[in-house]
This record gives sequence, structure tokens and C-alpha cells, in this order.
Amino acid sequence: MSISHIILAAGMGTRMNSDMPKVLHKIAGAPLVVHAMKSGEAVGVDKSVVVVGHGGEAVSKAVTDWNPDATVVTQEEQLGTGHAALQARAALADVTGDVFVAFGDTPFIRPETLEKMLDARKTHDIVVLGFDVFDPTVRYGRLIMEGDDLTGIVEFKDASDEQRAISLCNSGVICADVQVLFELLDQVGNENASGEYYLPDIVAIGRAVGKTATVVRCDEAETLGVNTRAELARAEQMFQNAMRAEALDNGVTLYAPDTVIFAHDTVIGRDAVIEPNVVFGPNVTIESGVTVRAFSHLEGCHVSRGATVGPFARLRPGAELAEDVHIGNFVEIKNATIDEGAKVNHLSYIGDASVGKATNIGAGTITCNYDGVFKHKTTIGANAFIGSNTMLVAPVTVGHRAMTATGTVVTKDIENDAMAIGRTKQENKPGFATKMFEMLKAKKAKQAKGA
Amino acid sequence: MSISHIILAAGMGTRMNSDMPKVLHKIAGAPLVVHAMKSGEAVGVDKSVVVVGHGGEAVSKAVTDWNPDATVVTQEEQLGTGHAALQARAALADVTGDVFVAFGDTPFIRPETLEKMLDARKTHDIVVLGFDVFDPTVRYGRLIMEGDDLTGIVEFKDASDEQRAISLCNSGVICADVQVLFELLDQVGNENASGEYYLPDIVAIGRAVGKTATVVRCDEAETLGVNTRAELARAEQMFQNAMRAEALDNGVTLYAPDTVIFAHDTVIGRDAVIEPNVVFGPNVTIESGVTVRAFSHLEGCHVSRGATVGPFARLRPGAELAEDVHIGNFVEIKNATIDEGAKVNHLSYIGDASVGKATNIGAGTITCNYDGVFKHKTTIGANAFIGSNTMLVAPVTVGHRAMTATGTVVTKDIENDAMAIGRTKQENKPGFATKMFEMLKAKKAKQAKGA
Amino acid sequence: MSISHIILAAGMGTRMNSDMPKVLHKIAGAPLVVHAMKSGEAVGVDKSVVVVGHGGEAVSKAVTDWNPDATVVTQEEQLGTGHAALQARAALADVTGDVFVAFGDTPFIRPETLEKMLDARKTHDIVVLGFDVFDPTVRYGRLIMEGDDLTGIVEFKDASDEQRAISLCNSGVICADVQVLFELLDQVGNENASGEYYLPDIVAIGRAVGKTATVVRCDEAETLGVNTRAELARAEQMFQNAMRAEALDNGVTLYAPDTVIFAHDTVIGRDAVIEPNVVFGPNVTIESGVTVRAFSHLEGCHVSRGATVGPFARLRPGAELAEDVHIGNFVEIKNATIDEGAKVNHLSYIGDASVGKATNIGAGTITCNYDGVFKHKTTIGANAFIGSNTMLVAPVTVGHRAMTATGTVVTKDIENDAMAIGRTKQENKPGFATKMFEMLKAKKAKQAKGA
Repeated sequence: MSISHIILAAGMGTRMNSDMPKVLHKIAGAPLVVHAMKSGEAVGVDKSVVVVGHGGEAVSKAVTDWNPDATVVTQEEQLGTGHAALQARAALADVTGDVFVAFGDTPFIRPETLEKMLDARKTHDIVVLGFDVFDPTVRYGRLIMEGDDLTGIVEFKDASDEQRAISLCNSGVICADVQVLFELLDQVGNENASGEYYLPDIVAIGRAVGKTATVVRCDEAETLGVNTRAELARAEQMFQNAMRAEALDNGVTLYAPDTVIFAHDTVIGRDAVIEPNVVFGPNVTIESGVTVRAFSHLEGCHVSRGATVGPFARLRPGAELAEDVHIGNFVEIKNATIDEGAKVNHLSYIGDASVGKATNIGAGTITCNYDGVFKHKTTIGANAFIGSNTMLVAPVTVGHRAMTATGTVVTKDIENDAMAIGRTKQENKPGFATKMFEMLKAKKAKQAKGA
Repeated sequence: MSISHIILAAGMGTRMNSDMPKVLHKIAGAPLVVHAMKSGEAVGVDKSVVVVGHGGEAVSKAVTDWNPDATVVTQEEQLGTGHAALQARAALADVTGDVFVAFGDTPFIRPETLEKMLDARKTHDIVVLGFDVFDPTVRYGRLIMEGDDLTGIVEFKDASDEQRAISLCNSGVICADVQVLFELLDQVGNENASGEYYLPDIVAIGRAVGKTATVVRCDEAETLGVNTRAELARAEQMFQNAMRAEALDNGVTLYAPDTVIFAHDTVIGRDAVIEPNVVFGPNVTIESGVTVRAFSHLEGCHVSRGATVGPFARLRPGAELAEDVHIGNFVEIKNATIDEGAKVNHLSYIGDASVGKATNIGAGTITCNYDGVFKHKTTIGANAFIGSNTMLVAPVTVGHRAMTATGTVVTKDIENDAMAIGRTKQENKPGFATKMFEMLKAKKAKQAKGA
Repeated sequence: MSISHIILAAGMGTRMNSDMPKVLHKIAGAPLVVHAMKSGEAVGVDKSVVVVGHGGEAVSKAVTDWNPDATVVTQEEQLGTGHAALQARAALADVTGDVFVAFGDTPFIRPETLEKMLDARKTHDIVVLGFDVFDPTVRYGRLIMEGDDLTGIVEFKDASDEQRAISLCNSGVICADVQVLFELLDQVGNENASGEYYLPDIVAIGRAVGKTATVVRCDEAETLGVNTRAELARAEQMFQNAMRAEALDNGVTLYAPDTVIFAHDTVIGRDAVIEPNVVFGPNVTIESGVTVRAFSHLEGCHVSRGATVGPFARLRPGAELAEDVHIGNFVEIKNATIDEGAKVNHLSYIGDASVGKATNIGAGTITCNYDGVFKHKTTIGANAFIGSNTMLVAPVTVGHRAMTATGTVVTKDIENDAMAIGRTKQENKPGFATKMFEMLKAKKAKQAKGA
């Protein structure tokens, strides 16, 4: 017995006005289809089958990037939701237990709602997800109930005035025994105006053979589908607002929550301070008591307790900051481990590197990690002092307690306790600056005269 | 036969609390008066005459910067809108056809509305722009209609209760035959409480000599005038929201539309991705499929298909990015052409330069374009590799496939395929770093003791 | 005769979900308790006594950092507001005149409101601050009035339906003669459900011994207390919106007010332009006609008339910019005086320094102010020209009209008019770049084959 999840993600979404299939458009850094998958994963789905069509290759990549165990099947022609769901049959041939059928462009269904649908399966064969809209003019299909029993689904265009007055609408999401689902889908026909096979038809077909159906209700917001970029922008804002509220509840300090942009998976500890204008890309973990100052951009990184980041800092994937690290302004950290108490305060690029405990990296330091073909690693020990404008030409190792003189290009390793220096002696030429400026100004005056 | 445009822009706008004349305050990077001019230009106005007064010199400069063919005339004393419009007479002496009289502080009149006014001119001599406000207490003048005919304009303070109940209000904008306008304006008197010559008086004067008048309606929002900085801020937000909605409609990806600031003339292609917190100054064109990452600032630049910019990038006027260029963090590009596939990824300043195809510019590279008097150019060939912290002292040329060693100060040209190096050999001094720190710490301890 | 202020700040604020006491959470860069203190200071309070408890040491530090003359007293056990106020007795033993009792988590009471309370003291012994809420279900205590006289305060839970229908609610803030206050507080008992001593009980006790009481009304918004982080975020937004509106009124240009974050004490002159996405930390003064461009971060600094800052600039405490200074992108200024007309346009760090008039600091310049133990000063004269990527190893002095060659590491002083140069001659190695790349590519190909 397992739980399966069929996600219909074959549509193009022409109203998005995009070359990219709709389900790949993102909310909080994750494609819509991934949000749909996450809902299922949160209730312990064992097997996800995503039905792709338009842009299938790209959708398939997004699906398996997120979950390598997911199965992708292709719907060659778009013949309706019933037909789409049937494409998952082979992939689920040996599976028993319940299955959800949901939509790749409906990212907000809560795990709690799916749990309720599983509960309702204990009493009924087919569970349909519904929501209330108290407006007889909205063009959703209506769910006809008799007590707890769903007795029919009527499309808005076919509904009588009396039926349109029913507030309970059809979200399209269904839960049933997986093999029962396919048996019923087999019997769905396409004798209708658009010639499509409709998934909701399984309710009538099922009831005709003695199956029972019922409805679980959710908030309308959960079933929000995304059809245009304006709707996507609103969905993003809803999602962000929910994440902001959750962060505040969790004890995160957000002075101006509306200016902080989260990713779908951002984790932030209690009493962390996130100043205004911070953007999180995917895969960021911020521990308690961290301060992320204004105008910082973080993705794929981990910041430990007590560290300070920014303002104007960029942490890229693989940045791993230990406790009490300081990353200052105009600093980029990529694929680098910065150990406890180390500081990179100004105008630096630290990439493909490790920096030891309590080491101080001077302003303008650059790890020269790329030779045009290969990327190389820089290793810096603990308690080292890297002078300003040091160029660390990787691969290179700087020892513990070592030092580099300002402006040194480091091409060979520096042993522990040593100082590396590579610098031309400063020479002062008296009067030379003034002479030179006078010459340049005279030239300019001459040019102006000539013009 | 031509179309002319008289824009009244002589007022100071004391409620703005500014030393700058009101019409020079900006929305989306363009002065209010330029927005007014653009409305006319969009319907093919042949001749624009802007009537200036307060801060006339500065307004005149803004007007002719935008459109060198515009005529600026000065209203020496502010004696009312009728008097102001008359100042345009000499400039339009030889002109035939229709003329609009509009206002420099009313930036939102849509070209479609002006088109409707031109259409209405086919049936009536004078066309007044009106708008509906269903509130008898708003203090606008009311337009009295008989069928399609405008029979009178009554100021709010002179209006009866019955007249105040009329929803149709006067925007002040007028369209008429240009010479008819001036003939009627000649007859406008100033026998009223404030001793001013009122433009709307031409309706009554015209009708008295057999001219006909009518009204074209627009939305109240179009006639929104700006009188305070708070109103300006609201107008800016309205304008930004309209541009954001239009961009979404056009297929631009905006994750957080409210955090993207457009200029009035920003052009962005389909499926371009504009991340949160991006600011566009005037004169930016972004092609399809470009990604502009968070915290980027662009003005006066062109970014070609497939390029990536930011985060934390600044493109200044004259930045011309070819396809698939990468501009990374803390990078400034000014007056520079970056050819296809070239990369400037970190902490660099590229100004007054050209960079060839597929060239890689290392972190910390600076084009030293200024010698204190002159600006000079840097030319870099294709497939070159500029090592980190290279200083390119312009004027200088780097050949194709050439390379610079990290930290080199390049003062003379580098031929194709050559490598330039200017670097002092690194010397390591064993034990020296530790010795030095001990000395400094001892000194500090001594100071602390002495204190 | 003086005015005193007792601020109750002993609570933990568990609903904040924070290890930090509630009153230290900030609005616009200042702790809540400081906002409460500022209200009193604005009406000329002579003596502030802050009653601390939870996190007393940290609260005490914040209080005395703000006002070294404030007295901090500790409430060892939290036994109610009456008990808390009594802790101030010793500190105010020799004081005469009126006293306010207010709350450390109620930051928005306007000085005008406190003035009204002082006025009301002329006619009544006890003045209670009230506010109207027209909702019988809100759970505030109600104030029972007879004409101008406050005759009773009834807790919501004890109130009859008739009493709950009273709109006038109790804020808890009180004004009375300081010694009268303590005499009455002495008689407050704790025979109630929670066993606490309640400050408002002094009204009944006072009236029983012939004292009179009255109410001063304020807006509900002024008495807004902060109990959760969500409430704190809303309070911050209210405060920011008020500051934005005030700045617009004062003639500051804010294109997108909602994106500008102020500190509680930010001062900005008329016709200054603050572009979108600017963050002000505490203690910033911006003079008239300054332009602060987008994505700038300022704290503890002073920017003089005509200066331009940003985009992407960071001014840290001690940055003092004279008139017409230019600070450009990716530039950090800390504890440094930049004299009239000087320019630091790109990618620089100027810390612990002074820069003379009209001096130009080239891109990539760094003041190397830290040797690992001490911080040292850099002094640059007027009309100097610091070449790109100059490292100024402090302590060091650069003379007037002096110059540094690009890439020079300056370790010794430069006299007036002199040029300093420290640079290895560039050497070009023909063909070497291409040869090297071919070698690297061959190696890569070999690796790929081997893999």
C-alpha cells in the first residue's frame, strides 16, 4: 500500500505569453510543477508521476532535478484531463493504494488538505477537492451533494440557475484507489462539445457502478491556478507574504518584511535579523542570531550562528560560513568555507577556497581561481592576515598565522608563520605630478583653442 | 495642414516646496513637461510650443533636450491660461490646422484621447476635454451640454446646486483650429475677481460668433494634475504600476513587479527575466531572453539576447552588450561595447572601452581611462584573457587571444597571442609574520598598560 | 518644579518569540524604549527613570547609551504596573512637579499629547490618557466619565454590557504630581485574581481621599503597543510612512517613497533627491540639493550641499562629505572626511582618512588602515590625483597636488607636487598566451579522455 501522485503538467499556458511551458514559471525560486510535487511529498507520497506535453523535455528536467525518483510520462496529444491522467497507467501498473490527481499549475494546495482527502477515502471511493465561492456568476463547475455524498458534477455552462447558486465548486483535484481510478478512466468518453476526455466524469461513471464519492473542502486560495503573468505575480506575492508572516512567527526579525524576498525553501533561525532589501535564492540556511544586512543576495549557502553578512554582500552556492564570520560590503563568496571568526570585510572575491579560523582577509583580495580552462582551489590557514589587494593565484596554500604584504601576487605556497611579499619599492619623483598636470592642461587648452 | 501643441508650463508650483519649477519634477525619469510633450508626439504633432515663465531657462533646456524642434516662448507675467496660450501666437503665425492647448503639469493624457479630440473637430469648432466625477462637492468647473453641444462652462464657485450636480467636469484641455483659437483668445477679457485671462472663455466667445463646441470624455486619472510632492509620488506609482502591468502583458518575467522601477521609455523583450530590485534609468533596451538579476541599475544601455547582468551590476550610458555577455557583481560598465559571449564577472570597472568576443575579464580589472585631464580608450580583442587585478592604462590596445598576468599594469599595447606580465617575484620570509604580530601585540599591551 | 518620566520596561514580551527583551526591539533603528524616552524629551522632561526587569542589563545599556542622564531602576519581581512604578520612588525622592508614567513598548505617544496632559493637570490631580474605540467587544478597560471628571476605570472582563458600550478606553498612561503618585501607589493593593498591583487603581484610591481625575484623549494609533513581531512590523511601517510623508512635505524628492527606509533621526534638506532603494541607519544628515542615488546605504554620516552619493555607495559612521563631493559605485567610506569637490567614483575603500579639496581618487583605491592590531590614518592633500588601484598603507600622508601611479603601493609619505610610483615594468611575451591556452586545453582534453 502506498500513496501515488499524478501531476498533470502537459499544457503550454499560452496566456503566459512565453516560450517557456507554464509549469516552469517560478514562484519563490521553484517552478510551479515543483510546488505541486512538494504538496504531495509533504504527505508522504511514494511515487510521483508527472504528465508532460508542451516543452516536455524542459519540464522533465525540472521534475527530475527536483526529485530524481519521479517518473515523467508524455501525453503526445492534449485530449483532456482524463486522457492525461491515463498516461500514468503504465508507470503505476504495479502500485496499490491511493492516488492523487492534481495540476502542475496549481501550486498552493496544502498538505493538510491532502491529508483530509486521504481520511475521506476511508468512507468513500472517490474524493473530490472542492471550495466555496459565494457568487452564482463564477464560471466553475458545481458539486452536487446529498449529505456527505457527492452525487454529481455539473459544468457551469450546463448548470441551471438553481445549480449556479450552489457555492461548492470543483477544483478538479481527485483522490481514489489507483487501480480504480484507471478502470474508471477507461470508461470516460469524449462525446462532448470539445471532444475531450474529462477527469471529473469518473464520478458519474463510478456511481453508476456502485462507487461512492464525497468532497473535501479547502480555501479558494489553495486551488488558485496560474494562467497569466499577472496571476503569477499575485501568486508570488501571496506566497511571499505567507513566508514573511511565518518567519515573524518563528521569531525572525524583519524590519521591513515586504522588502525581503524568500525562496520556497529558505530556513532562518530565531532572532536572526534580516534587514531590508535582502533577496534569498534557493537552498539557504541561516542560523539563529545571524545578521544579514541590507542589500544582500544569498543563494545555496549556510550561515552559522552569530555571523554578519553585508550590506552589499553576495553569497553564492557553496558558501559555508562558520560562527561569527564577518562578510562585508561588495564581497562575493562562492564555493568557499569560511571558518569561525574569519573576516572578509571589503571588495573581495573569495571563490573555490577555504579560509581558516580568525583569519583576516584585507580589502580588495581576490582568489584567482580560473586560468581560462581550469578552476583551482585556494587554501588559507587559521589566524592568517591577508594584506589588502592580495592576489591569490590558485592552486595555492597560505599557512597558519601567515601574512601577505599589501599588493602581493601570491603564486607559490606560504609556509606557516611566514610573510610573503612581492612589491616594487615606491619611488617619489619631486615636482613630477605638478609638471605632468601642467603639461596635460596645456595640451587641453591648445586643443580647445584649435577647435 | 498640420497639428500643433501649445503646452502651458509657466507656473512655479509653490506647493511643491522646491526651487525647481514644477514641470521639471520627474515621473519615471522624465520631467512632467516631457510627458505632456510625448502625448502630443504620439498623435503626430508637427509643432510644439511650450510657454515658460518661472524657471524659464531650465524648463527651456529640458524641452529642447527632449525635442530640439520644439519652440519655447516666454510668458513674462502670469496673467492666466488665456494669456499664456496667446504667447504662442507668433510661433504659430504661419501654421494652419488644429492645435491642442494642454498643461505641462498634466502628464497622463493618452494619445487615444487626443485622437478622439481631433475626430470631434470634424463636427465642432472647439473641443473641450472633460471627465466625469460623480460628486457635487468637487471644485472643478462644470460643462453644460445640450445633446452633443457644449453650451457653457461654469466655474464651481459660480455654479448653482443644480449645476454642481452635473458630473461632467472641465479638464481645461482644448482643441481648435489654430488661427481660430488666437482670434477668440484676442477677445478674452480679464474682468473677473482674479483679473486673469481664462482660456475656457473662448467657448462662450466662440458660440457668440457662431462657432460650435463639444466635449470629449476621458478618465479622471488622465487629467490628474500634480501640485504637491505627495501627488507626484502617487502619480509616479500609478505610472510605474501601468508599466509593470504592460511588461507582464508583453511576456516579461517580473517576480516582484512592485520592486522594479522603470523609466518612461524602458523597452524589454519577451521572456526577459527582471529579478526583484532592479532600477532602470532612461534609454534602456533589453532584448528577449535577457536576465537582469537583483540589485542592478541600468541607464542608457542596450542588452542583447541571452545576456546576463548582475546581481549588483551597474550599466551606465553607452554600455552596449552583445548576445550572451555576462556582467557579474560589483561591476560597472560605462561607454563600452562588450562583444558576444564576453564576461566581466567580478569587481571591475570597464569604461571607454571595447571588449572582443568571448574575452574573459578577470576580477578586479580596471580600465584606467582618466589621466586627470583627458579620457582615453581601451581596446581589447577577441578571446583574450585579462588576469585578475589587471590595470589597463588607456589609451591601450590588447590583441586577440592575448593574456595579462594577474596584477599587471598594462601601459603599452599587447600584440595578438602575447602575454603581458609586470610583476615582482613573491618572496617568503619564514617566521616573519608571527614575529611582526607579536611585536604589534606587545606594543598594544604596553599602550593598554600605560593608559 | 520639574517634569519627570517613569517608563515601565521590565516585561519580557514572550509573544515576541525572542531572547531579546521586547523594549529593545527596534523601530526605525531605535529601540522601543528609546522612542518612549524621546516622547518625554520632546516636552522637556528633566528626569527619566526607566524601570527594567527582564534583560535588565541590556535594557539599561540601551537607555544610558541614548541618555546618559537617565536613571535605571530594577524591578526584581514583576508584580504589576503599580509595583513597577513604585520602584522609581527612590530615584525621584527629592523631585517636585509632575510625572508621567508610560510604557516602554508604546513608542508612538506624541509630545503634543503629553503637553495636553500637563495642561489638564492644572484642573485635576490625576490625568489618564484615553482613546476612543467604537467597538464594544475590544478588550480594553473603559473610562467612566461624569462631565470632565473621570469617576472610575473598569476592566473589560468586569464591565457590564452598558459599560462595554463606552467608547473611551484606558491607555494606562498617567500624569500626576510625583509625590502624590507615590503616596497613592503605596495604598494600591493586590487583592485581585492575578495578585498584581495595578497602576490605574490610584484613580479610585485618589478619589476616595478627595483627589480629582480627568482624561485626555489621543488617537488609538498613539497608544499602539507592540506585542508580536507582526505588530512590530506594522508599527515600523506606520512610522516609515509618517517619515516619508513628512519628508515630502519638507520638499525632499522621493521618487518611490515606499522604497526609502528612514531612521528615527534622519534629517534631509529641501530639494535633496533620494532615489529608490536607499536605506538610512541612525544619525544621518543630508543637506539641501544632495543626490543620493539608488541602492545606497548611509549611517552616521553627514553629506553637504550639492554632493552626489551612489548608486551602490555605502557611507559608514564618521563619513563627512563636504560640498559637491562625488561618491560613486561600490565605494565604502568610513570615518573619513572628504573635502569639497573631491571624487571617489569607483570600487574603493576609504577608511580612517582625510581627502583634500578637489582630489580625485582612482578606481580600486584602498586605504590599508589596519595592520592586524592597530588602525592607522591616511591623509591626502588637495588637488591630488590617486591613480587606480593605489594602496595607501597607513599611516601615510600624500601631499597637495601629488600623484600616484596606477597600482602603486604607497608606504612612505609623498611630498607636495610629487609623483609616487612603484611598479614593475610590463613585459610582453609574444605568442605565449596562445601557447599556454593550447597547453591547458590539451590537458583538459586528455583528462576528459581519461575520465
